[in-house]
Amino acid sequence: MPLSNIYKPVKEDLAKVGNELRLVSKVDFSWLSELLDYSLSSSGKGIRPALTLLSGKFYHYNLNTLSPMATATELLHMATLIHDDAIDKSSTRRGKPTLYKVWGEDKAVLLGDYLFAKAGELTATTGNLRVIKLFAQTLRTISTGELAQAFSAFNVEQTYEQYIQRNSYKTAALFILATESGGVLSKAPEKSIKILNEYGYNLGIAFQIVDDILDFTGSEEELGKPTGSDLAQGTLTLPAMLLLQRYPEDNPVQRLFQHRDKQENIKLAIELIRNPSIIEECYRIASDYCAKACRNLELLPDDASRRALMELANYVVKRKR
Amino acid sequence: MPLSNIYKPVKEDLAKVGNELRLVSKVDFSWLSELLDYSLSSSGKGIRPALTLLSGKFYHYNLNTLSPMATATELLHMATLIHDDAIDKSSTRRGKPTLYKVWGEDKAVLLGDYLFAKAGELTATTGNLRVIKLFAQTLRTISTGELAQAFSAFNVEQTYEQYIQRNSYKTAALFILATESGGVLSKAPEKSIKILNEYGYNLGIAFQIVDDILDFTGSEEELGKPTGSDLAQGTLTLPAMLLLQRYPEDNPVQRLFQHRDKQENIKLAIELIRNPSIIEECYRIASDYCAKACRNLELLPDDASRRALMELANYVVKRKR
Repeated sequence: MPLSNIYKPVKEDLAKVGNELRLVSKVDFSWLSELLDYSLSSSGKGIRPALTLLSGKFYHYNLNTLSPMATATELLHMATLIHDDAIDKSSTRRGKPTLYKVWGEDKAVLLGDYLFAKAGELTATTGNLRVIKLFAQTLRTISTGELAQAFSAFNVEQTYEQYIQRNSYKTAALFILATESGGVLSKAPEKSIKILNEYGYNLGIAFQIVDDILDFTGSEEELGKPTGSDLAQGTLTLPAMLLLQRYPEDNPVQRLFQHRDKQENIKLAIELIRNPSIIEECYRIASDYCAKACRNLELLPDDASRRALMELANYVVKRKR
Repeated sequence: MPLSNIYKPVKEDLAKVGNELRLVSKVDFSWLSELLDYSLSSSGKGIRPALTLLSGKFYHYNLNTLSPMATATELLHMATLIHDDAIDKSSTRRGKPTLYKVWGEDKAVLLGDYLFAKAGELTATTGNLRVIKLFAQTLRTISTGELAQAFSAFNVEQTYEQYIQRNSYKTAALFILATESGGVLSKAPEKSIKILNEYGYNLGIAFQIVDDILDFTGSEEELGKPTGSDLAQGTLTLPAMLLLQRYPEDNPVQRLFQHRDKQENIKLAIELIRNPSIIEECYRIASDYCAKACRNLELLPDDASRRALMELANYVVKRKR
């Protein structure tokens, strides 16, 4: 099922979030407006704002708070991507030159800061202290996850548990912010908020695992960036971990991390990792997380949103980009 | 009067803020703890947390909210410095190697993000929506000011008004956050909050002008970084603007900004700017802002804090580092 169908229960309101996002670039300084336009026009899949709205549908759906919160989750996501690209010196994202590439590192760092702040302001307009605290914690968690990744770059001695923890910090935390804030702002009972939190966590882990698979199996055109980017950055992800396990004696990931001689070893690693049994194993783990994400959803009110969250979990594993 | 005397009315509580700052580095991951320790140990003058506490002394002084807020203003300040150093590729700050220099740009960007988040969390613990909103706005204003500076680098066509506006964004905004939050959290009447806001604004502008003077007149030892750093970054500040006015035909600032041949022109510019009449003019403008900062303070309750704020304005112009 395509995303547009899955988003159907909140379709019109997601369009409003899109408008709110575009309003962010309406500022006094033309140079700032240009930067913001550039960043905000390359919209992604919109999963995070959709999660906030869908999660807010089960009880008292109040668009006055859910809409700025949904916009905030998307802005927070964009800000982290802009900083990531500056740090990784990535040239392309979503098929177009990164802000870093066009305007340089200084502007990318500062625009990321600007968007963190804007996201914080939008969150504050909800007037809800619980989601405000959760927002700030989430930014801290994401930064911790990114730091963990930076400190473990080019290190083959990493466990599966560390990998999952890093994903929970750098990716799942923002999914949790999206779903939990939807629950809190719609005055959901605590046990429903917990279900939405667990859904966000498990969906986020699954999403990141699939991202890590696609980084090896996708084409440059599908990914909007070169295949094997994670390895090039020294980031050890699940597919590469499984490769290390299968060829413990000698393998291109080990050689790459030791000698940093990139091109040849990345190419070899991609070939070996595309071995169906490694990819199948990764998808099996991602599917397990998606199943966990959905296992308690039936305890929420029977609603079009509930089916949408189920479908979204299904989509996350099936997606090609 | 030395700072320690000026801070006397809040001396013990400032020590508590110091403890709260040190607690920030008590985290689970040793690599993160090390980064935080390094950043938080090179404490500056502590003007911003002192401003929050002193501004909170006039009405209902409540350390439970003022202390985290004071800590937050200092962390926000530190985070912006860490990002600035990464962007400017500065090697030293406060006489020791910058985080950027020791750990690299990626860690510096991410630790700055971490500290923004931590500051936001502390602000949220006040439970006061008005200061929470002000905090987020302040981060956005600072980022805008830093972006304005980046976009105007190596441009001699800048007006005095643009210079003051940039300073109001990149420096005074944080002074306003410090003083206004003190007023709001101590339940000051609106007209007192306005006085504290104006004090923060004018003190902040004066502080930045003096910073810009010291960048030319201070020794490397006093500054903790090379003399003439602003010019080296292409940042046009008041002393260099006055030089441009006095030697409109040909001068080292113009040559530097046109040809980027740094060493020789920076040295010449420093010599010419140290001309007493330029420096005196800059100090006169800074003193005017300090006078403006103090002009309505007498409308606040007569208190040791009020005298401290007066003394602080005096100190800001007299300081050597």
